[in-house]
Amino acid sequence: MSVTELSPLNSNLDLYPSRKGQPAKIIPRQDPCVYSDDAVRPPISREDIQFYQQNGFLIIKNVFPPEEITDFKNELNHLCSLSTRTADNRFILEKDQQDVRSIFEVHILSKRFEELSEDPRLIELARYLLNDDIYIHQSRVNYKPGFNGNGFNWHSDFETWHTEDGMPRMRALSMSIPLTENTSTNGPLMFVPRSHHHYLSCTEQTPAHHYIDSLKEQQIGIPNPANISGLVSQYGMVQALSQPGSLILFDSNTLHGSNSNISPHPRSNVFFVYNALSNKVVAPFDEAPPRPEFLAARRSIRPIP
Amino acid sequence: MSVTELSPLNSNLDLYPSRKGQPAKIIPRQDPCVYSDDAVRPPISREDIQFYQQNGFLIIKNVFPPEEITDFKNELNHLCSLSTRTADNRFILEKDQQDVRSIFEVHILSKRFEELSEDPRLIELARYLLNDDIYIHQSRVNYKPGFNGNGFNWHSDFETWHTEDGMPRMRALSMSIPLTENTSTNGPLMFVPRSHHHYLSCTEQTPAHHYIDSLKEQQIGIPNPANISGLVSQYGMVQALSQPGSLILFDSNTLHGSNSNISPHPRSNVFFVYNALSNKVVAPFDEAPPRPEFLAARRSIRPIP
Repeated sequence: MSVTELSPLNSNLDLYPSRKGQPAKIIPRQDPCVYSDDAVRPPISREDIQFYQQNGFLIIKNVFPPEEITDFKNELNHLCSLSTRTADNRFILEKDQQDVRSIFEVHILSKRFEELSEDPRLIELARYLLNDDIYIHQSRVNYKPGFNGNGFNWHSDFETWHTEDGMPRMRALSMSIPLTENTSTNGPLMFVPRSHHHYLSCTEQTPAHHYIDSLKEQQIGIPNPANISGLVSQYGMVQALSQPGSLILFDSNTLHGSNSNISPHPRSNVFFVYNALSNKVVAPFDEAPPRPEFLAARRSIRPIP
Repeated sequence: MSVTELSPLNSNLDLYPSRKGQPAKIIPRQDPCVYSDDAVRPPISREDIQFYQQNGFLIIKNVFPPEEITDFKNELNHLCSLSTRTADNRFILEKDQQDVRSIFEVHILSKRFEELSEDPRLIELARYLLNDDIYIHQSRVNYKPGFNGNGFNWHSDFETWHTEDGMPRMRALSMSIPLTENTSTNGPLMFVPRSHHHYLSCTEQTPAHHYIDSLKEQQIGIPNPANISGLVSQYGMVQALSQPGSLILFDSNTLHGSNSNISPHPRSNVFFVYNALSNKVVAPFDEAPPRPEFLAARRSIRPIP
């Protein structure tokens, strides 16, 4: 594993151009996936670290016991029942419906989720992988209700975070904790293994206020079908089937998405996005006004103690 | 197995009321699932017949060899490329898209699919199960394209065929042949085993010209979530994972649906709905004008020779 230190002087350099009206390209990743040196002892097995580095994702079982998951689910139900939710932009509803699709900034909305976001079981691993002080770039619950849960189109988070938020480099990751079982029938996360080694640039420019539509259904910042097909035919697809209390870890540039959920069972996962402090956002690379703070921490960046 | 002969005099009796503005109910099935007597030798194993009778579906592998499937896929591609398709109501496009969702009356549009609909491997089994002369009530391909294939909400076909088409009794079945692999990632059919023993009536009345919207996304004639949840918690859900050339058989009243398909791989299946000649449609039980002939044979009923 090589260690790259980002020069702050270069943080405005666009190594991953996208949405500039240019034909879609596949750009090789310019950054490490695991930033700590081999000499440092990881908080999980070296085999797991190697798997993550090679594949861009990892599922660790039984990280949180059932009583903690019950606690988180109660907290989620509490958030969903808040009377303030209809006037709160952080609550995203499903298209044409009243069902909750996502809730953003859960670590600010909820003391319990704030504690979870700083839980040593998460942050020690995030610090190891990013080898830096870390902060929360974004947090959310994707609720994906039963019967009417819509899917998420294929995308790399980094493509959006770089283009719309100004995240300079691939030095961020997501940690997702299933609060309900993630089965093959309720729209589990699907990853394209090894896709994180390839940056798929997109063609179409970001429309004004794009995020409002994109949170219901992302259409811009979706790689072209031929490039997705190419990666899938080379590497396949993996469903992140998992029990509540597992930890699903994925790199900022891993291609992922999910199908809809007509099953009666919600597929509700909480997500924390950790970014390296040295990689904090600059001006968006699409030169549009930045997205709101609840989607991308900018003014309120606070390193996790 | 008991054999029930329908009295033609009773064919206007509504044994399965639905969409009358009444609260949703669960009505026990009034009809057999397998109409032939035990004494008659079935064209498939007795174990398979028993499985079908108990569960309301059956998957039989390797019914059609690869060269026949290639032939059917070529025929499907030919249909999709027809210049007349944009002006033909039988071609249903995905919501907000140009991708083909379904093509109806494929046995009339295509000589090759007509031959398939009369193939002894299908009709001998259909005749055995329905114990009558048979005809095609409906045929279609559900194309479900890659990347943008929308799902199908939970429903019983019979609820629609009875209410909107006037099919008197449960004496019909669907035979579906996968032309592409049906995997857990491309929105396979999902069945609720044993659900065909229960008729889930619906509340909301059929709006005028409902079928036009319902072919893109069915909203009316969807059982209420509590009743679906009840059956799923009792019986579970099964994905019809299958290879091209398999035969997926399901009863007219089996609760089924499917999630969307963001994978790059289309999930394209051809469907033939066989109905017993003694069970041909009468006036729709919702008292609305009948749906077009391409959705439900009425004037053009022709027993399969």
